[in-house]
Amino acid sequence: MGTDTITLKEIVKGIKPADEKWVEKAKERTSQLLMPTRALGRLHDISEKICGICKTLKPSINRKAFLVMAGDHGVVEEGVSAYPQEVTGEMIKTFLNGGAGINILAGQVNADVFVVDMGIITDLDPVSLNGEDRLFIHKVAKGTANLSRGPAMSRKEAEQSILTGFQLATDLFKKGIDLLGTGDMGIGNTTPSAAIGTVFTGTALEEMVGRGTGVDDQGLLKKQEVIQKGIDVNRPDIKDGLDVLSKLGGFEIGGISGCILAGAYHGRPVVIDGFISTAGALVAHSLSPNVTDYLFAGHCSEETGHRAMLQYLGLEPVLDLGMRLGEGSGGALAMGIIEGAIKIFTDMLTFEQAGVSNK
Amino acid sequence: MGTDTITLKEIVKGIKPADEKWVEKAKERTSQLLMPTRALGRLHDISEKICGICKTLKPSINRKAFLVMAGDHGVVEEGVSAYPQEVTGEMIKTFLNGGAGINILAGQVNADVFVVDMGIITDLDPVSLNGEDRLFIHKVAKGTANLSRGPAMSRKEAEQSILTGFQLATDLFKKGIDLLGTGDMGIGNTTPSAAIGTVFTGTALEEMVGRGTGVDDQGLLKKQEVIQKGIDVNRPDIKDGLDVLSKLGGFEIGGISGCILAGAYHGRPVVIDGFISTAGALVAHSLSPNVTDYLFAGHCSEETGHRAMLQYLGLEPVLDLGMRLGEGSGGALAMGIIEGAIKIFTDMLTFEQAGVSNK
Repeated sequence: MGTDTITLKEIVKGIKPADEKWVEKAKERTSQLLMPTRALGRLHDISEKICGICKTLKPSINRKAFLVMAGDHGVVEEGVSAYPQEVTGEMIKTFLNGGAGINILAGQVNADVFVVDMGIITDLDPVSLNGEDRLFIHKVAKGTANLSRGPAMSRKEAEQSILTGFQLATDLFKKGIDLLGTGDMGIGNTTPSAAIGTVFTGTALEEMVGRGTGVDDQGLLKKQEVIQKGIDVNRPDIKDGLDVLSKLGGFEIGGISGCILAGAYHGRPVVIDGFISTAGALVAHSLSPNVTDYLFAGHCSEETGHRAMLQYLGLEPVLDLGMRLGEGSGGALAMGIIEGAIKIFTDMLTFEQAGVSNK
Repeated sequence: MGTDTITLKEIVKGIKPADEKWVEKAKERTSQLLMPTRALGRLHDISEKICGICKTLKPSINRKAFLVMAGDHGVVEEGVSAYPQEVTGEMIKTFLNGGAGINILAGQVNADVFVVDMGIITDLDPVSLNGEDRLFIHKVAKGTANLSRGPAMSRKEAEQSILTGFQLATDLFKKGIDLLGTGDMGIGNTTPSAAIGTVFTGTALEEMVGRGTGVDDQGLLKKQEVIQKGIDVNRPDIKDGLDVLSKLGGFEIGGISGCILAGAYHGRPVVIDGFISTAGALVAHSLSPNVTDYLFAGHCSEETGHRAMLQYLGLEPVLDLGMRLGEGSGGALAMGIIEGAIKIFTDMLTFEQAGVSNK
């Protein structure tokens, strides 16, 4: 597809709305299936959206994967997280050993897990499994700068993080992955995500900032202050997604934005996870509002501001189970539902095929 | 287990609450798992409830199945359904051919589908697959009587339908099925289910009675009238579950009650589906309130009164996707989530095992 040297401007220009004609054709087929009118509710909306994305009435999911984007955050020096920063690298090792939440829930739906070092403080070597890379090293830098005192990264680094995510997702699509989930790892990353969420959605800080991995009441107030300071110091321009990402973001958030843009550019569905993935979606959406046509919100996180983010994007979450782990975990559970929706659409008999009396 | 000649009284006497000690032990293990405190929300509640049911910290699901209970309803002569009564038998044939919603969604989670003729008007022969019975014929009668004019069945028939469900579920547990879902098929069966729901929960008819397979406004009013008439004529005693089932019920609803009692009696988890399965749960609960300790509500149905029924039982639905198909379809999708919850509990590394720094 010649995307190796593609620019962000070209990507954005190449993203079109999903095809409403195919959605209409899909609705027509749904109406013939062996059940009362649209009796499987949201499952029909999901399968018809997939038809619009993939421009087919025979969608099929052959291979699924998660791209778990990892980054570290300078802002943790302000005391905004309950865990030490080295946990980011330790968790990456666990992802590669298969013992973390995302491994188990992705395994449950037969999705592979690929991990990307977008810029963590720890130095790790690339990892392969059966000849396939599983840990990609694309360190933009060893952690972002402290967003409460200035930009988290340069504009060039923001662009680089998006293009890296775009390229990695593009490579997975080329390898035959037809359902991609985004995941995240990065101690402190609910802070940049809440900052991004607040500026884009206009939601008050108190309604957007949550406890992340579990800060106490004092920590929560501190986190709100730190974010307010970051917004005041940086004055991000919400009409300019790269500006917001560079000033408030994280490298993994940029990488997630790139995955989302890749799905929309190549016409593939992407399942986002929770708070951090949705911050990435907000950045991608600010660059191209069409991206939501290609997105599924896996779940509504327990993290305070997530629902407001999803409402802003017009995305209805598939699941609502009080989860707040990240890693892609909610997206993985949702993939099972999405696949069920597709199989209903493609495999259920029609009234005519089954020879059953209709109304 | 010598349940072949067990009486309903003995079943009820044999049902104990699930073991709170195992739930506590399970919570202790959850707290050691590699994530912020209870970061997977409802998944932990699910896995810990399973530990309490199965009295183990190593729950595992080896074989899953659905028992789809089918019955016909004399009350359809009042014009309460959008579909003709012969559809019940036609749908059973489709279940056995594998082309219906429950087949596809059960297949998605590797659950087998067993169908029971609890009393449909059509005569079908038993069906086997690979030497295993797939359609069981246990016709209590060829459809119930019209509940709006008198009892739907005799007290003896009500007991027979429960004991049949109990015995079939017991047989499946003996064969190694460790997660059982209940499903239903029966044109007209939202009418008896709404009647049962109204009397047990005390919810107003207008909030309990929905459109079922899709009656129009006039049909909906008719349905409410018919149910009110049935309650007035029959005066069911809600302190006596058999009385309610015999006067307002269906044979498939009794069968579902039996499955639920069997789960509680043998200490196995049962996943109920939507409106009809929950009517069965209300009857079982009136016989033994302990049954809810063993139950998972797969989803909240779009059918109007379902949420009130679940609230009455104190059950939080796993999914809420606007579905209203029945057959077991919502339970099947939920089984994927329940299995994910169990795998997280059993397979996720602890902080110590992973060598990751805790708070």
